[in-house]
Amino acid sequence: MTPLVNRQWRLKQRPTGNPSVENFEFSQVSVPELQINEILVKTIFLSVDPYMRGRMRNVRSYVKPLEINEVLEGGVVGQVVHSRHLKFKEGDIVSGRLGWQDYAISNGEGLRKLSYPKNQLSMALGVLGMTGLTAYFALKKIGQPKKGETILISGAAGAVGSVVGQLAKLVGCQVVGIAGSDIKIKFLKEECGFDAAFNYKTADNIRKSIKDHCPQGVDIYFDNVGGEISDAVITQINLKARIIICGQISIANREKTEFGPRNLLYLLVKRARMEGFLVHDYQDEYEQALNELEDLVMSGKIKSKESMIQGLENAPKAFIGLFSGDNIGKQLVQVSSI
Amino acid sequence: MTPLVNRQWRLKQRPTGNPSVENFEFSQVSVPELQINEILVKTIFLSVDPYMRGRMRNVRSYVKPLEINEVLEGGVVGQVVHSRHLKFKEGDIVSGRLGWQDYAISNGEGLRKLSYPKNQLSMALGVLGMTGLTAYFALKKIGQPKKGETILISGAAGAVGSVVGQLAKLVGCQVVGIAGSDIKIKFLKEECGFDAAFNYKTADNIRKSIKDHCPQGVDIYFDNVGGEISDAVITQINLKARIIICGQISIANREKTEFGPRNLLYLLVKRARMEGFLVHDYQDEYEQALNELEDLVMSGKIKSKESMIQGLENAPKAFIGLFSGDNIGKQLVQVSSI
Repeated sequence: MTPLVNRQWRLKQRPTGNPSVENFEFSQVSVPELQINEILVKTIFLSVDPYMRGRMRNVRSYVKPLEINEVLEGGVVGQVVHSRHLKFKEGDIVSGRLGWQDYAISNGEGLRKLSYPKNQLSMALGVLGMTGLTAYFALKKIGQPKKGETILISGAAGAVGSVVGQLAKLVGCQVVGIAGSDIKIKFLKEECGFDAAFNYKTADNIRKSIKDHCPQGVDIYFDNVGGEISDAVITQINLKARIIICGQISIANREKTEFGPRNLLYLLVKRARMEGFLVHDYQDEYEQALNELEDLVMSGKIKSKESMIQGLENAPKAFIGLFSGDNIGKQLVQVSSI
Repeated sequence: MTPLVNRQWRLKQRPTGNPSVENFEFSQVSVPELQINEILVKTIFLSVDPYMRGRMRNVRSYVKPLEINEVLEGGVVGQVVHSRHLKFKEGDIVSGRLGWQDYAISNGEGLRKLSYPKNQLSMALGVLGMTGLTAYFALKKIGQPKKGETILISGAAGAVGSVVGQLAKLVGCQVVGIAGSDIKIKFLKEECGFDAAFNYKTADNIRKSIKDHCPQGVDIYFDNVGGEISDAVITQINLKARIIICGQISIANREKTEFGPRNLLYLLVKRARMEGFLVHDYQDEYEQALNELEDLVMSGKIKSKESMIQGLENAPKAFIGLFSGDNIGKQLVQVSSI
């Protein structure tokens, strides 16, 4: 039998500033024979995520940096096409961190078997995966929303933000979103049930827009972006506000230190709390959270939104688009069909 | 009987940048007759505090701004020299917010009767007053120190910092201080029992000094100063670090917005928490805390340090000196003797 060809995206060079297609190399290798206790998984959907920008730097953060020539990391929903592992059989659908490639060999560690309907499988990379869990835990553990409070979400139309808003709405919060296009604003208000939302790119004065859209002030600020939007938000926080630092995508590609106003006196005056968040800290509670999220999604109480690009060859394009705000909801790549 | 003359410091003009003596007016008024339910208190000790700089601005913060021509506010330990109030008698020693003046008329509201030994009365404005309570609650409620953790304190030789360090030492923390003179460093190590301390003004590289003095990283950062010292500290925080924003004296006198590096990614990577603090939020627990602090002070487990300036006429000088770091421990003014 001719060995299968595996196309892979590898890190060719570390980006300076915005990532570009030149930073990636599309290579082909043959899929080797399976060893005992291994399975071969064919990628169906691939997730591209902003945090990979950090891993492309040669700086140790909460995970080690990617090596040059290493296959890019990413969440995958795939199908087992060959198994020498007792726990998996051909046809099983699994999800796990299997990388930017057509095929992955795995010993099964860290894989989750999925039994969702066919048309909902991709959700395992979004609302029923890391981004959904991020929204869930960050809101619950740090945000601690109470009925009637105002939550303001930056990057609101993204994979995390759009779920945060829907979860906060279920608690009874006044939910306000900030996003970067009128289509996103329409999406937030009409599909995600946000009470209000505005386009920061066309706002004359972001601080004034926040005031107008959050007349009761901001009790919870769910920050996915950092930078100037956050500078404006902190001036509008209420007493005992909670600020969740979930992402800082506005400065993700900056090579030099960015400077911003020293504004920590707002925290003092308002006795507010600001806290950094990473979903990995809550692994022990993933299962319970996923059960809850599944119920909410399957009963239609939370809507999942995805931006799908076709073809593994377009994975870098999908990734690069994250930083210019191309995506609404979770950005995925469809690599093959089931 | 000739009415008593009351000297008072009033706000003459709002400072631009560093406060100066020209901002204050020293005036004299006669003390009026007491009404029923009033007492006349003669100031013995007066407290000057950095937060008053904020109140001299025409900006509403957590308290309303001082009016032009209003008597400066400040904590006082004084003696009742005349009483038409059933709860107070001549000779009683009281403390309360009675202002920068020789005499105050009070209806008794907010006054605390003191029964400390004569030579410890001034502590009611420091370790057994607002600054001690600030140290106590900020450390306990936000810092939540655990044995073996490293706490780093900026403005460590000030009224709050020096108490924070001693309290943290009692919990079993590794206590490290940052201050602005070699005399202060000696004070921290030799009198307050700090494990380590360094002079930021003579340090070649503050970040390196922090690394050297906190080899296990920083679990709690007690921030009294803000600015560049804090920029350096945040790079050295440990997982789940707590940062207490208690003061930002380094930027207290700046008229324009100061800019600093955007460094909130450190909070994310370290899942750290930053929280603003004001002591007023814990009024319900003052009594219990003061009892505890009194025990610690009277048994010698916590030492109180004061910088005393003689004469009400020198109150502005004492206040202005806070911003150039003249004081070690609590800055007080001795207005009269008991």
